[in-house]
Amino acid sequence: MSPAAHTRTMDVPVLRWLDPPEGPAIALLDQTRLPAEEAIVICRDVAALEDAIRRLVVRGAPILGVAGAFGVALAAARGDDVAAAAEAIGSARPTAVNLAWGARRVLAAYQRCLAAGPERSHHPQRIAAQAALDEARAIAEQDAAASAAMAAYGLPLLPLRGARILTHCNSGALVSAGEGTAFAVILAAHRAGRLARLWVDETRPLLQGARLTAYEARRAGMDYAVLPDAAAASLFAAGEVDIVMTGADRIAADGSVANKIGTYGLAVLARQHDVPFVVVAPVSTIDFDTPDGSAIVLEHRAAREVTFLAGQAIAPLGSAAYNPAFDVTPAAFITALVTERGVAQPVTAGNLRVLDTRPGARVSALTESSMER
Amino acid sequence: MSPAAHTRTMDVPVLRWLDPPEGPAIALLDQTRLPAEEAIVICRDVAALEDAIRRLVVRGAPILGVAGAFGVALAAARGDDVAAAAEAIGSARPTAVNLAWGARRVLAAYQRCLAAGPERSHHPQRIAAQAALDEARAIAEQDAAASAAMAAYGLPLLPLRGARILTHCNSGALVSAGEGTAFAVILAAHRAGRLARLWVDETRPLLQGARLTAYEARRAGMDYAVLPDAAAASLFAAGEVDIVMTGADRIAADGSVANKIGTYGLAVLARQHDVPFVVVAPVSTIDFDTPDGSAIVLEHRAAREVTFLAGQAIAPLGSAAYNPAFDVTPAAFITALVTERGVAQPVTAGNLRVLDTRPGARVSALTESSMER
Repeated sequence: MSPAAHTRTMDVPVLRWLDPPEGPAIALLDQTRLPAEEAIVICRDVAALEDAIRRLVVRGAPILGVAGAFGVALAAARGDDVAAAAEAIGSARPTAVNLAWGARRVLAAYQRCLAAGPERSHHPQRIAAQAALDEARAIAEQDAAASAAMAAYGLPLLPLRGARILTHCNSGALVSAGEGTAFAVILAAHRAGRLARLWVDETRPLLQGARLTAYEARRAGMDYAVLPDAAAASLFAAGEVDIVMTGADRIAADGSVANKIGTYGLAVLARQHDVPFVVVAPVSTIDFDTPDGSAIVLEHRAAREVTFLAGQAIAPLGSAAYNPAFDVTPAAFITALVTERGVAQPVTAGNLRVLDTRPGARVSALTESSMER
Repeated sequence: MSPAAHTRTMDVPVLRWLDPPEGPAIALLDQTRLPAEEAIVICRDVAALEDAIRRLVVRGAPILGVAGAFGVALAAARGDDVAAAAEAIGSARPTAVNLAWGARRVLAAYQRCLAAGPERSHHPQRIAAQAALDEARAIAEQDAAASAAMAAYGLPLLPLRGARILTHCNSGALVSAGEGTAFAVILAAHRAGRLARLWVDETRPLLQGARLTAYEARRAGMDYAVLPDAAAASLFAAGEVDIVMTGADRIAADGSVANKIGTYGLAVLARQHDVPFVVVAPVSTIDFDTPDGSAIVLEHRAAREVTFLAGQAIAPLGSAAYNPAFDVTPAAFITALVTERGVAQPVTAGNLRVLDTRPGARVSALTESSMER
């Protein structure tokens, strides 16, 4: 294991910006080929990035925010239509709110600079492109810092020793410019000697748990076991789960959490067995413009993801499939939401509003005393 | 589709006895290779049959009873140690109670005949072997009849029209000498024009839903869709499931049901969403010697079934896996148990005792009036 492994489980960065002459381009670790292969996909324009996002070469809420940001910076560096690029990237996947959030932030930085530009330079677009890239880099740095803050806020929610944590999908260094969301907390527990066992839901259909979380757990030297998603219920029944921790793809203003398909079922099981169910996500995942769970648009993906595996048919040819990428867990099933600004517990609209950092929104760190109980 | 398709969805019989000169042998449709290929495995001795049972060439509660029965008949026909064969077959898979049940019945027929034999013949073992084979054939015929009876008893539990049924694993003609257990009821609903949609859980790790139930549903011309097991929760949340129907691998005397891993999670979800959860199984699946769910021995299978698929690693090499073949659903989660002797509703020890057909046990068909409520 490399010396860097303690601050970053990946030797190959998930997302890198390439300057000329290599670039301008975005280099992505191809997550569809892990763990078999650490392949790199180079995106030289926005269309290539959109394709990579749709194919899940890069996936996971926080890193999609970073990818969206660098995508707009790429359009700016190329002299493409930057507003159109932000629009296209923001809608590449309907549920992933961070994508549009990152793209919008960089577009705003670009436009601000351009508006101020003529007085400052004969190359306003070049200057604005640099401002866009600076903003994308700032988003990546903030994401890494948010990851560390989430780990710090989340750790106290775990048992002091011997924690048996169940997680679903993948929420580690592959989804983040830092160490991730739920997985960052789990990694903190592992380093503190508090983790006995990580239960890794394989997470069908695309097996992000078996492929990616197991890959990260193995590299970190954790005691882990992969399980078929449907086997989680028997772990709860056997008293083998102390806490469930997952990430989130979009959180509505009422605290409803859209996350990888299967999350809601785990939340129902956790409640049935009195096991805490904790979601870990940066504030950028909260979409205050989406009032509740029913307003979250859920991405449905191709039947082939279910009916084929590794190019082989696993169901009769022509079979229909039900393949939503996400489900929605109502706030009432969620014990706590860990963010980089603090822990919302219980998860209520009021406790979420405290986290709102948009211009004009109330800005104050979440504290025990300010929270609805 | 062949003219026989209405009474039997398979063109290739699941299990056939082969007389000399082809036999004595048992021909099994290799369920591990469906739906890609309809291959036949010929078992010429008990060791070959045991291997086929362990590898799941043949699987599913009722047909395992039939397979166990023919396995003992095969040992008798070969002149092998019949009692040892019954013992070996009966313990090939620990949770599958029908296996030992079928083997024991044929062993008893063999031994009865042998005990009476010397006065009747100079070839007592040959006569007893014939008695064993007759008993195995009787078990197969009774299983087919039981299947039809379960379909008749189960159908009234379904909505009169537009039923959207969720099922898990495989419970059709592949698990039975007839049309199966839960799937026999679903097929009856389909023929009666009452089925709108069959939701087929893919059933990881071995994908018996995607491979086998989808294969049977397709051949029967049903409207069906395959889903990742973890997607079932979102179907419940969307109100897309009217009833859940599954088979069972062993039922304890208190009504606890051991069935394919994932069944318990569905039962919890069904209760959460006020959806009936119905188990369909022949009385031979009820093990009156197992007092409750905690006494059911659950088979754990190799990690490789989870971490590899079609020979390819889907998790990092060396990953541990949690791979129980079955879980246990407490009786309180089960709306009704449909058997060939009637419907136990609610599922209680008393209502199950009414179904007990063992010598010395109370023998009476289950009727509304005789049931605990």
